[in-house]
Amino acid sequence: MNGLQEIRDFLAEEFPQSPCAIDAIGPQSATVRYRVDENSLRPGGTVSGPVLMTTADVGLYAAILGEIGIVALAVTTNLNINFLRKPSAGRDIIGECRLIKIGRQLVIGEVSLYSEGDDRMVAHAVGTYAIPRI
Amino acid sequence: MNGLQEIRDFLAEEFPQSPCAIDAIGPQSATVRYRVDENSLRPGGTVSGPVLMTTADVGLYAAILGEIGIVALAVTTNLNINFLRKPSAGRDIIGECRLIKIGRQLVIGEVSLYSEGDDRMVAHAVGTYAIPRI
Amino acid sequence: MNGLQEIRDFLAEEFPQSPCAIDAIGPQSATVRYRVDENSLRPGGTVSGPVLMTTADVGLYAAILGEIGIVALAVTTNLNINFLRKPSAGRDIIGECRLIKIGRQLVIGEVSLYSEGDDRMVAHAVGTYAIPRI
Amino acid sequence: MNGLQEIRDFLAEEFPQSPCAIDAIGPQSATVRYRVDENSLRPGGTVSGPVLMTTADVGLYAAILGEIGIVALAVTTNLNINFLRKPSAGRDIIGECRLIKIGRQLVIGEVSLYSEGDDRMVAHAVGTYAIPRI
Repeated sequence: MNGLQEIRDFLAEEFPQSPCAIDAIGPQSATVRYRVDENSLRPGGTVSGPVLMTTADVGLYAAILGEIGIVALAVTTNLNINFLRKPSAGRDIIGECRLIKIGRQLVIGEVSLYSEGDDRMVAHAVGTYAIPRI
Repeated sequence: MNGLQEIRDFLAEEFPQSPCAIDAIGPQSATVRYRVDENSLRPGGTVSGPVLMTTADVGLYAAILGEIGIVALAVTTNLNINFLRKPSAGRDIIGECRLIKIGRQLVIGEVSLYSEGDDRMVAHAVGTYAIPRI
Repeated sequence: MNGLQEIRDFLAEEFPQSPCAIDAIGPQSATVRYRVDENSLRPGGTVSGPVLMTTADVGLYAAILGEIGIVALAVTTNLNINFLRKPSAGRDIIGECRLIKIGRQLVIGEVSLYSEGDDRMVAHAVGTYAIPRI
Repeated sequence: MNGLQEIRDFLAEEFPQSPCAIDAIGPQSATVRYRVDENSLRPGGTVSGPVLMTTADVGLYAAILGEIGIVALAVTTNLNINFLRKPSAGRDIIGECRLIKIGRQLVIGEVSLYSEGDDRMVAHAVGTYAIPRI
C-alpha cells in the first residue's frame, strides 16, 4: 500500500486544479472529498451530477494508486452511478471507496457518496478500471 | 416489514419452478440462495452468468417485498452486474441484498454475491425497481 | 470474420441445452434469437428478465466469436440492462447486437432486444468482455 | 416537440455557465456539443471523463425537454457510461442522443459520444430520468 502523502502529491501534479482531496487511504479503500463551491451547484440548491461522478472516479483512482502503486496508469472503462437523493448545497461531498476486485487486467470498485455529516447515501457508483499491459 | 414465510409463500406461488430460496429477510435487506444444479453450470466448472443475475434480481425483489409489502408489484427497470471471479461449480450462490434507496417511485438496491462458504465476492449487482402508481 | 455455421457448432457444443440460436453474424454484429417456451414466462404473460439478459449475453458473445475467432475465450465482466416494456409472451426474443469497441483487452457491445415482429424495443443492454492474455 | 431556441433559452437560464450547447433537437433525439477548452483536458492530451459524462447527461436532458416539454423537471436517476477510446484534446465532444423509452414515470435514453469530425465512438452512455408525479 502506498502512502497518503505520496498519492496526494501525485494527484496534485496530475490534476492541479482538481477540487477533490484525498482524506484517507486504507487497504483496498480510500475516502475522497469534493470541496463544494458555487461552481458545483445546480438550481434548486443541490450539487450537480457531474460533481458526484467526478468524486467517485477520483476516489476509486486514489484507492487503486494505494493498492497497485502510482506508477501504473489506470484508465476508467466503465462508471455506473445511481442518484439516490439530493445532496445538500452547503456541504462537501464525501466518497467512501472500496475495491471489490483487483485483477491483473481490471480493477473494480464501489463508492458510497454522502453529504458531509449526513449518513443518508446521496449516490452509489461502481467503476471499472483497465490496467495497461506493460 | 413483512414476514419471511409470507414472502416465501408469495414467491413460491409466483415463481413455482424457481431454484431460488429466501434464507433471511431483514430491515431493508434479504439473503437469497440459488440452488446450483447441473443446469446452472457452464463449461469449465463454473456457474453461469444468468444464474448470478437471477439471484440478484430475486433477492432484491424479496427485500422490496419485505420492506413495502407483498401487494405492490415492483418491476425491474435496470440491472447492472459486474462479474468478479469464477464461482465454484459445487456450491450454492448466496446473495446478500441491501436496499439503498426506498422512494415512492423507485427502489434501488445492491447485491454482493458469493459461492457459499467462500468470502470472496464473485459478483456485485445494483438493481432499480419501479413501484407502479396505484 | 468467422462463419455462421462454425459459430453455431461451437455454441452448440459449449452450451448444449441453450434455448438461444444465432440467426446471423455480420461485421462486428450478430442477431440472436431466444426460443421462448413455458419456462421463459413470468406471471402476467411476459418473458422473464433473465431470459432477456441471457439473450443479450449470448448474442454479444456470438458477435465477438465472429470478430476475433472462436479460439479466444471471452469472459463477461459487466452487463448493464434496462428493461423498457413488457415483451410478448408468445413471441421469440430477438437481440440485435453491435460491438462498439474491439480492444486487445476489452470488447464492448450493445444489444437492442425485441419481441419478434414488433419494432418497439423491450430492453437495451451493454456488455463488456475481457479477452484473456495469451 | 418543443423548439430548439426555447430549449436553449431554458438551459442557458438554468445552467448559465455550462460549456454545453444544443446543436439540434429532433423526434426523441438531440445533438449536444461540449466546447472543449483547457479546463476540459487531462494530462496526456485527452478530454476528461467528467466532460463526457456531463455531455451525455445534458444531451439526454435536452432530448427529454424536446419530447415532454420544458415545464417538467426530469431528474437523473442512473447514468452508465463506457469509455471506449481517448477523445482528441483539440476537438469538441459531440453527443448523439436518442430516447429509447418515454414512460410516465421514467425516460431512458442512450448517447453515442464522438470527438468532432471523427466517426469512431469515444464513449457510450445510457441514462435514466425520473419524471416527478405532478
